[in-house]
Amino acid sequence: MNNSIISKNCVIGKNVTIKDGSIIGENVIIEEDVYIDYGCIIKDNVHIKRGTFVGARCILGEYLVDFFDDMKNKNHPLIIGQNSLIRSETIIYGENIIGDNFQTGHRVTIREKSDIGNNVRIGTLSDIQGHCKIGNYINIHSNVHIGQKSIIKDYVWIFPYVVLTNDPTPPSEQLLGVTVESFAVIATMSVILPGVHIYEDALVAAGATVNKDVPKEVVVAGSPAKPICKVSDIKNKISGEKVYPWRYTFDRGMPWNNVGYEQWAKNNPYM
Amino acid sequence: MNNSIISKNCVIGKNVTIKDGSIIGENVIIEEDVYIDYGCIIKDNVHIKRGTFVGARCILGEYLVDFFDDMKNKNHPLIIGQNSLIRSETIIYGENIIGDNFQTGHRVTIREKSDIGNNVRIGTLSDIQGHCKIGNYINIHSNVHIGQKSIIKDYVWIFPYVVLTNDPTPPSEQLLGVTVESFAVIATMSVILPGVHIYEDALVAAGATVNKDVPKEVVVAGSPAKPICKVSDIKNKISGEKVYPWRYTFDRGMPWNNVGYEQWAKNNPYM
Amino acid sequence: MNNSIISKNCVIGKNVTIKDGSIIGENVIIEEDVYIDYGCIIKDNVHIKRGTFVGARCILGEYLVDFFDDMKNKNHPLIIGQNSLIRSETIIYGENIIGDNFQTGHRVTIREKSDIGNNVRIGTLSDIQGHCKIGNYINIHSNVHIGQKSIIKDYVWIFPYVVLTNDPTPPSEQLLGVTVESFAVIATMSVILPGVHIYEDALVAAGATVNKDVPKEVVVAGSPAKPICKVSDIKNKISGEKVYPWRYTFDRGMPWNNVGYEQWAKNNPYM
Repeated sequence: MNNSIISKNCVIGKNVTIKDGSIIGENVIIEEDVYIDYGCIIKDNVHIKRGTFVGARCILGEYLVDFFDDMKNKNHPLIIGQNSLIRSETIIYGENIIGDNFQTGHRVTIREKSDIGNNVRIGTLSDIQGHCKIGNYINIHSNVHIGQKSIIKDYVWIFPYVVLTNDPTPPSEQLLGVTVESFAVIATMSVILPGVHIYEDALVAAGATVNKDVPKEVVVAGSPAKPICKVSDIKNKISGEKVYPWRYTFDRGMPWNNVGYEQWAKNNPYM
Repeated sequence: MNNSIISKNCVIGKNVTIKDGSIIGENVIIEEDVYIDYGCIIKDNVHIKRGTFVGARCILGEYLVDFFDDMKNKNHPLIIGQNSLIRSETIIYGENIIGDNFQTGHRVTIREKSDIGNNVRIGTLSDIQGHCKIGNYINIHSNVHIGQKSIIKDYVWIFPYVVLTNDPTPPSEQLLGVTVESFAVIATMSVILPGVHIYEDALVAAGATVNKDVPKEVVVAGSPAKPICKVSDIKNKISGEKVYPWRYTFDRGMPWNNVGYEQWAKNNPYM
Repeated sequence: MNNSIISKNCVIGKNVTIKDGSIIGENVIIEEDVYIDYGCIIKDNVHIKRGTFVGARCILGEYLVDFFDDMKNKNHPLIIGQNSLIRSETIIYGENIIGDNFQTGHRVTIREKSDIGNNVRIGTLSDIQGHCKIGNYINIHSNVHIGQKSIIKDYVWIFPYVVLTNDPTPPSEQLLGVTVESFAVIATMSVILPGVHIYEDALVAAGATVNKDVPKEVVVAGSPAKPICKVSDIKNKISGEKVYPWRYTFDRGMPWNNVGYEQWAKNNPYM
C-alpha cells in the first residue's frame, strides 16, 4: 500500500525507497539507493544523488518568491549531493547546489542561492537565509541564523544561537555580510555585526557581540567583544594541554581523521 | 487525483486551488483566488480572504487549550486577510483576526488573540504568544519571540532573535508586557525586559539587554543597555549621510513607497 | 473516511481516536482514551499511555542514528506517560521514557536518552539534545536548548532562548554538562557555560553569560555574570513584598497548589 504521487518526467533509480504519502513533482531525478521517508514534498526539478536519506515530511525545492506572481513554479533546480542525510521536516528551496555528505538536523530552512560545499552539517532549526557562500567541512550547530551575503570559508564551527547579521543601519537596502575565514570558531549565542571579518583560527567566546574584525588566532569575548588572549593561551582545564588551533587536537569528521592535521596538511597543502 | 477532505458547511470561492492531502474542517470559508498547497490542515471556522496563498502543511485554526477539556473544537474563528502569503508549516491558532497583506516565513507560530493589523510580516520560526496587540506595517524578522501582553504600534522593525519578555519576577502571575511605539527599531538578539516602554524612533542596538524605558529618538546598547547617542547622530559609513529616523531614508513596503515619507505624511497625518 | 495506516502487532485501547493520515508503525501500544490528531507518524515500539493527546503531525519514535546503517529501525522504545499533551509537530526520538502529565508546545525536538520525569512542560521550538537528565515539575519555556549531559533537578524554571552548553573548548570530545539544582530559575536569553553548577533557589537574570557556579539563593546578572544580590532582596515592585524563593509565592501547576509550599513541605519533606 503506497499512496505517494509521482509526477511526469521523473527518473527514479534502482533500490529507491519512497514511503507513503510523498508527493514528487515533475522532472525530479532520484538516484539509486535513495531513501525517502513518509510524507515528503519534493517539488519540480529536484535532483537527489545516490545514497541520500530524506527524512519524513521534508520539503525539497520549495518555491522562490517568483512562484507567487502567478502561482506557477519556475525553473529553480535543486541538487543535493550523494550520501547526504536530511533529517525530518527540513525545507530546502530551489536554486541551490549542495555538495556531498551533507547533513541536517530537523526543521532546517535553507533559502535559495546558499551555495553549500561538501561535508557540511547544519543543526536543528538553523536558518540559512540564502545568497551566501558556505565552504567545505563546515559545522553549523542548532538554531543558527546565517544572514544573506555571509561568506563562510572551510573548516568553520558555529555553535547554537549564533546570528550572522548583514544590515549596518536597519532597516536599509545596503547589506554587508559577515566573512568567517577558515578554522574560525564562533561559540554559542554570539551576534556578529554587519561586515565584520573573522580571521583564521580566531575564537569568538559565547555570548559575545562582535562589532569589530577579529584578527587571526585571537580570542574575543564580551559585549561589545574585546580581545582577551591568543587562542594558543587556552589550555584544557584537566590535562593542561593547549587545545587551539583546534585542527591539531580534533579530527572527528575532518579529512585528517586518524591521520592528524600536520601529516594530512603535508599531502594537502591548504594555505 | 486529489485526496483532500472537505467537511460540511464550507464555502469555497471561484478559482480556488486545494492541492493534495489537505484537510478542511467545518464552516470554513475560502474566498476566490486562494491557493492552498499540499497537506494543509484547516480546522473549523477559518475564513481565508481572497487572493491569499497558504503554503504546504500549514495548520490554520489550531486548537486553543479548551479543546483538551473534551477533545472537541470550540468556536474560535480565525480570519486571515486578503492577499496574504502564509509560508509552509506556519501554525495559526483560532481566535485571531489578521489584517490584509499578511506575510509569514516558514514555521511561524501565532497563538490566540494576537490582534494583528494590515501589512504585517513575521519571519521564519517567530513565535507570537498571543494576547498581544500588533499594529500595521510591522516587520518582525526570523526567530523573534513576542511575549503575551506585548503592544507594538505601527511601522516597527524587530530583527532576528529578539525577545519581548513579560514576567518581572519569574515565575509569577503578574505579566507586564513591553510596549514598542511607532517607528522604533530593535536590532538582533536584544532582550526587552518586562514593562519596558520603547518610545518613537528609538533604536535598540544588537545584543542589548534593555531594563529601562528608551526615550524617543535615543539609541541604547549594551547589557544592561545604556543610552549611547541620538538616532540622528548615526551616519551611513559610506555616504556619510544621516540614516535615522529611518522613515526618511527607507520606503520598501511602506505606504510612502516611491513618494517619500514627508510628502506622504502631509496627506496622511499620523501623529 | 480514514486513510491512516496501522502496522502489525499494534495494541489499540478503548476509546482511541486516530484522525486521518496517520501512520502507525509496528509494536505500537496506544492505551485507552488517547487522541491522535491528523497526520501523525508513530514509528515502531512506541507506547502511549492512557488519556494522552498527540497533536497533528507529531513524529514519535524518530530514528536514532543507527537507522542509517542499513535503513532499518532498531529497537529503541519510546514510552510517553499518561495524560500528556503533545502539541502539533513535536518530534520525539526513540529510546526515551517520559513521565506522566508531560506537555509540549509546538515543534519541540527531543533526542534519545533525555530521561524526563513527571509534570514536565517544554515550550514551542525547544530542543532537548538527549543524554541528559530532567527531573519533575520542570518548566522549560519556548526555544530553549538543553545540551547533552545537562542535569536538571526538580522544580526548575528555564525561560525563552536559554542555552545550556557543554563543550569547554569547542570543538572537542570532552563534554561537561551544566547542572541546575532544584528551585533554580534561569531567565530569558542566558547562556550557561560548560560544567557550571547552578545551586538551589538561585536566579540567573535575563541576558546573562554564566561562566562560574552560582551559589544557593544568589542572583547573578551580566556578561560575564556577577552576583548582584540575594534572591530574598528582590521585592515585587507593586506590593513591595518578597517574591523569592518563588516556591513560597507561586503554586500554579505545582504539587503545593492551593496548599502553600510550607504546608505541603511538612507532609512531603524534600531536602
